Amino acid sequence: MPLPESPAATESSTTRLEAFSDGVFAIAITLLVLEIRLPPEAEVAHAGGLARTLLTLWPSYAGYAVSFVTIGIMWANHHEVIKLMSGVDHGLIVWNLLLLMAISFTPFPTAVMAEHLPHPGWDRNVAVAFYCGSFTLTALFYNLLWRNASRQRRLIRPHVSDERVRAISRAYAPGTFIYGAATAIAFVSVPAALAIVGGLALFYILPKRGAHV
Amino acid sequence: MPLPESPAATESSTTRLEAFSDGVFAIAITLLVLEIRLPPEAEVAHAGGLARTLLTLWPSYAGYAVSFVTIGIMWANHHEVIKLMSGVDHGLIVWNLLLLMAISFTPFPTAVMAEHLPHPGWDRNVAVAFYCGSFTLTALFYNLLWRNASRQRRLIRPHVSDERVRAISRAYAPGTFIYGAATAIAFVSVPAALAIVGGLALFYILPKRGAHV
Amino acid sequence: MPLPESPAATESSTTRLEAFSDGVFAIAITLLVLEIRLPPEAEVAHAGGLARTLLTLWPSYAGYAVSFVTIGIMWANHHEVIKLMSGVDHGLIVWNLLLLMAISFTPFPTAVMAEHLPHPGWDRNVAVAFYCGSFTLTALFYNLLWRNASRQRRLIRPHVSDERVRAISRAYAPGTFIYGAATAIAFVSVPAALAIVGGLALFYILPKRGAHV
Amino acid sequence: MPLPESPAATESSTTRLEAFSDGVFAIAITLLVLEIRLPPEAEVAHAGGLARTLLTLWPSYAGYAVSFVTIGIMWANHHEVIKLMSGVDHGLIVWNLLLLMAISFTPFPTAVMAEHLPHPGWDRNVAVAFYCGSFTLTALFYNLLWRNASRQRRLIRPHVSDERVRAISRAYAPGTFIYGAATAIAFVSVPAALAIVGGLALFYILPKRGAHV
Repeated sequence: MPLPESPAATESSTTRLEAFSDGVFAIAITLLVLEIRLPPEAEVAHAGGLARTLLTLWPSYAGYAVSFVTIGIMWANHHEVIKLMSGVDHGLIVWNLLLLMAISFTPFPTAVMAEHLPHPGWDRNVAVAFYCGSFTLTALFYNLLWRNASRQRRLIRPHVSDERVRAISRAYAPGTFIYGAATAIAFVSVPAALAIVGGLALFYILPKRGAHV
Repeated sequence: MPLPESPAATESSTTRLEAFSDGVFAIAITLLVLEIRLPPEAEVAHAGGLARTLLTLWPSYAGYAVSFVTIGIMWANHHEVIKLMSGVDHGLIVWNLLLLMAISFTPFPTAVMAEHLPHPGWDRNVAVAFYCGSFTLTALFYNLLWRNASRQRRLIRPHVSDERVRAISRAYAPGTFIYGAATAIAFVSVPAALAIVGGLALFYILPKRGAHV
Repeated sequence: MPLPESPAATESSTTRLEAFSDGVFAIAITLLVLEIRLPPEAEVAHAGGLARTLLTLWPSYAGYAVSFVTIGIMWANHHEVIKLMSGVDHGLIVWNLLLLMAISFTPFPTAVMAEHLPHPGWDRNVAVAFYCGSFTLTALFYNLLWRNASRQRRLIRPHVSDERVRAISRAYAPGTFIYGAATAIAFVSVPAALAIVGGLALFYILPKRGAHV
Repeated sequence: MPLPESPAATESSTTRLEAFSDGVFAIAITLLVLEIRLPPEAEVAHAGGLARTLLTLWPSYAGYAVSFVTIGIMWANHHEVIKLMSGVDHGLIVWNLLLLMAISFTPFPTAVMAEHLPHPGWDRNVAVAFYCGSFTLTALFYNLLWRNASRQRRLIRPHVSDERVRAISRAYAPGTFIYGAATAIAFVSVPAALAIVGGLALFYILPKRGAHV
């Protein structure tokens, strides 16, 4: 590995940054399934057969679905944001790398949450808070990436209106707070925290009214 | 993560939707091998050596092959369908995400089926039904994606004939029913259910007569 | 999943076939590392510490290196072959899918071989034969893909000379036999079989004399 | 698999070499998370609950972050280097393959280091040296790739100045020595070795002053 050297801002670079990010999104989303595992044979027999065991894995399926949709939303939004940018600079590469780091981490908190969801107790609160906390970090890096790129329109394409930049800033800002609130709430009420995270994913999936949506 | 924002329908988006989907297809198909595992050394010795153990893993190889070809067919068809579309809207992104979610899930039911195939009994029926059921879900999302995009030709390119749209609708409709039937049949006869799923994969692989094939 | 439908031969399809195949090559090559695992702590202590344990993992490193280079060679050659083709038909998609299936399988025989290499005995012969056998299958599918596409120049671009087509057929034919021979030899002599497989990988890595190479 | 055949140097090939390399970078960086695992339930209870257990995993998080950023830096630099090249020859393919082999290996030494970091003793020194050693190898292959391609400007595009080539050679040369030094130092002082490796990653992340950064 060479010593760090930073590329100049060039338009062509956004293509490759996007392709690399797409790869990481696609892999992180697909690795989620590896965290769903059948318990050992003895436990399957003890649980009363395979059918019942597969049903008891519902927290794994739910975690898989919510994380899958959440990463999917992030992918779609990432695309929307990057295509407004005229080039790539050191700051964008670094914030993007930290964002991808948080996204790639998702399979671990998803597995931790799924493992503890069936067992009421303090550990379950911790597991759900850990899950929501990892999305909070992701939302934070997302906002920092956008702020860094849009500050004084540093990396924004000329044809993008100031209004559109402000609209995106407004739309992205609440994410960190909502996920942060879900993290805090998880220590008090697991269902309430999950309702927030699952609700955001569901809200995105539901059909939208309006012109293009 | 920002709050959901939906991109406008733009032609260039189909390229990126396709690239992302391709990535997920390629990863899901390659992760299948991770579910093939050698039993612990003690079991290998007990089974009468490595050669015999490798032979007893035939359900894993068969599951790997059928799932690999089935995902491969889905990839080829996904390409055919997406290239008829003039753009991407919120509905297409969401149905595509749900389709990818079902496809990425495949390694888990494949492993569950392979583990239970050698041991006759109710759990084997359940495992095969679970396997067929996951393909049923995939086929269902596939149809919903297509119906959503082709309804009133919403996202269909102008040059594509109505006849071609109807032909695809006709060709895709039976998939959900056939896989759904295999799921139901699995509870009665494992070989019959596997014959359907394996037969569909084999049918695709066999050379075709006719113009383009 | 829809019922199988085969795409017409179109030039643009080779790009996407190649991109999908590249994805599978890149993932299969990177998954190899997941098969290298540290034994449990108790065994590390028993083996006389971590340094010694890391050294005893040499068969895993060797297997990783040979499989990595072998898949890398296949990737480079795949590119060379596909770019001679004017389009994609059903046969090419199917043979390519079977080729990718054999390549994606590589991590499993690599792990089986690495696990048994340190322990002399019949199981070691079987493990190495299994490893060489999986490359034999890969070489076979590679040849069938090429024969199917080049027969009567079906999918060959017009500007490619007959001589070049014959030269490739000649160059690829021995692969199946050499790997097949290594498979048979593995039952008699493990070092001889490994010398063939490792030698082919090394031969490729060594600098070549000549114009561009 | 065919017998080795080497492609002629053609500009278009750099695109595909880069796409394949990008895939391997993206996968290797995303697989890092699979090495972070929760200990079995009994150990979690023994450690005093999930919250405490998640905290004791800090070496895994730290290793994940440092390896993620380090691979990210390598990706960014790889792009900078490849885009200076006018084509691909056998040497570039081979050195690139060896570089990717070293990068794909990263998840294993990362896991080995994370597992041993909490337990003082000789094994910890060995684990950190193994980790730094794998980056040394990566840096070495990186330099060999660059030297091979830039020697007598063999593969350098005409418009790139001699000065720029020399500047890159100067910037990349110290990498191998610094990581090599960290490897040696790890046998004496674990904190000092980690300070070097972590410091290089941090140094890259920090905002830069100057023209393009």
